[in-house]
Amino acid sequence: MVGDSSVPRRVRLPARVVGARSPCAKVSPVNVGILGGTGPLGRGLALRLAAAGTAVTVGSRDPARAAAVAAEIVAAWPDRTLAIAGAGNPAAADADVVVMATPWEAAVPTVAEIAGHLRGKVVVCVANALVREGSDMLALIPPRGSVAASVAAAAPDALVAAAGHHLPAHALAKLDRPLVADVLVCSDHRVATETTMALVARIPGLRPLDAGGLASAAAIEAFTAVLVGLNIRYRAHSTLGLSGLDGNSRVPARTEVPLP
Amino acid sequence: MVGDSSVPRRVRLPARVVGARSPCAKVSPVNVGILGGTGPLGRGLALRLAAAGTAVTVGSRDPARAAAVAAEIVAAWPDRTLAIAGAGNPAAADADVVVMATPWEAAVPTVAEIAGHLRGKVVVCVANALVREGSDMLALIPPRGSVAASVAAAAPDALVAAAGHHLPAHALAKLDRPLVADVLVCSDHRVATETTMALVARIPGLRPLDAGGLASAAAIEAFTAVLVGLNIRYRAHSTLGLSGLDGNSRVPARTEVPLP
Repeated sequence: MVGDSSVPRRVRLPARVVGARSPCAKVSPVNVGILGGTGPLGRGLALRLAAAGTAVTVGSRDPARAAAVAAEIVAAWPDRTLAIAGAGNPAAADADVVVMATPWEAAVPTVAEIAGHLRGKVVVCVANALVREGSDMLALIPPRGSVAASVAAAAPDALVAAAGHHLPAHALAKLDRPLVADVLVCSDHRVATETTMALVARIPGLRPLDAGGLASAAAIEAFTAVLVGLNIRYRAHSTLGLSGLDGNSRVPARTEVPLP
Repeated sequence: MVGDSSVPRRVRLPARVVGARSPCAKVSPVNVGILGGTGPLGRGLALRLAAAGTAVTVGSRDPARAAAVAAEIVAAWPDRTLAIAGAGNPAAADADVVVMATPWEAAVPTVAEIAGHLRGKVVVCVANALVREGSDMLALIPPRGSVAASVAAAAPDALVAAAGHHLPAHALAKLDRPLVADVLVCSDHRVATETTMALVARIPGLRPLDAGGLASAAAIEAFTAVLVGLNIRYRAHSTLGLSGLDGNSRVPARTEVPLP
C-alpha cells in the first residue's frame, strides 16, 4: 500500500478540499465517492485509489449491489488494507470528491437527481459516449460537446472536471501489475483541475496532465473511441502515453510504479 | 538515407498504386504530391519522405514559392539525396499519392478546384481545424465532423484517408534527430489505409496504426488541439505514443530509428 509520502509535493490537494491550513501542510487522504462505481472503470478506480490510501465509497442506484461490489473488491485483495464501502449514489455523493462513472446515458439523470449534494464540490466525470458500429467504435457527440459539459450543465454549482477516460479498466483491476499511463485532466475550475490531478498522482504509474478548460473534454472523450477501436482491431490493451514531456520541470512527476 | 529495404514487408504499398505485379514484388518508391506543402507540416513531411527515398512534389497556389521552398529544403541537407521538387497544386496533385497539408480553411476550396486530378487516387488529409482561445487550443468541429470528411465530400471520387495530425512539425524538420511517434490512419477505403500506412512506415521511428473508418477522423483531428494545448501549457513538444501495443504481432513494426 502506498502511503501519503507518495503524493508529490507539487500536486498537493487544495487546502479548501482537504482542510490543510497552509501550502506546507501535509496532505490528508481525501474521501472519494464513485457514482455508478459498480462498472469496470468504477471498480478499477475504487481499487487503485483505495490502495493508495484513499477512503472510497462505491455508489450505485442499488445500495445493496454497491455494498456487495465493495465487499467483493476488498475480498479479492486480502493482503491489502482497502477502505472501500458501498452506498446509494446520494450517499456516495456526500464524499469530499465525487467521480461520475455511470454509463454515459445515466450521467445527466443521475447528477440531476442529486445536484444538491454536489454544490461547490469537485466532480470528476470519467464517462464516455461510445457506441460500437460494426468493427469500429464511434464516439457520439452529446449536444454540449461532451458528457462532462452535460454533467456541468445539470449540476451548475458543481466544479466539474473530466479525466481518466483513457484508463483501461482491466489494467486498473490488476493491482499487482504496474500501470503506466498519462491522464488528461480538464476543467473550467482551477480547484477542480488541481484536486483531480492530485488524486490521479496518488495512483502509482499515472501522470496527470493539465489539458485545459472543459471544452477539451469533447476531444478527450471522443478520442477514447479511437483507443478502444485500436484495442479491438489489434486485440491489444493500449493506453495513452505522451513522449516529449519527460524531463520538463513543468510536468507533474509520475509516482513510482511498484513492481509485482 | 533509408532505402527500400527499410519498408516492412507487412505494410507493403498496394500493387495497384506502385505497379507491382504480385504480393511478393519489391516495393518501389511512390511519388507523393503535398498540396499546401510550404507550411511547417508540409515541409517536414516532404523532408522525411524524401529522406526515406520517396520522390516528393511540394505544391502551392504559387508555383514559384513551391519551387523556392523545395530548393530551400534540399539545400539545408547537402549530404542527403532528396528528390524534392516544387509545383502548383494541380501539378502536385498528379502524383501517385496526394497529401492535403493546406490550412484547414483552404482544404475544401483547394480540393474542389482539382477534384478531377484526384479521381481514384489516395488522398491523405493531415489538416486540422484548430483555433487558439486564450491559453487554450480549441478544436473546431466542421459540419461533417472532420476536415477529412469535408475533403472526401468535395472530392467524392478520391480515396481519402486521414493521418499524421499528431506529428510535431518541428521534430519532422530535424532530420538528424530521432523521431518516435505513433501515427493514426483512418479511411473508408482499404487501399487508402494500406497505402498511407505503408508511406508512414517508410519514415524511421514512425509506427502506423489502423484507426478504422473515416468517422474516426473527427476524434483524431480534434485531439490535436489537446496535444497542442499541452505543448503550450507545459512548453513541451509532445507526440502521441500508445503503450500496450508493443509485442503484439498484429501491430505494424516501427522502422528503425537512426541515431544522430
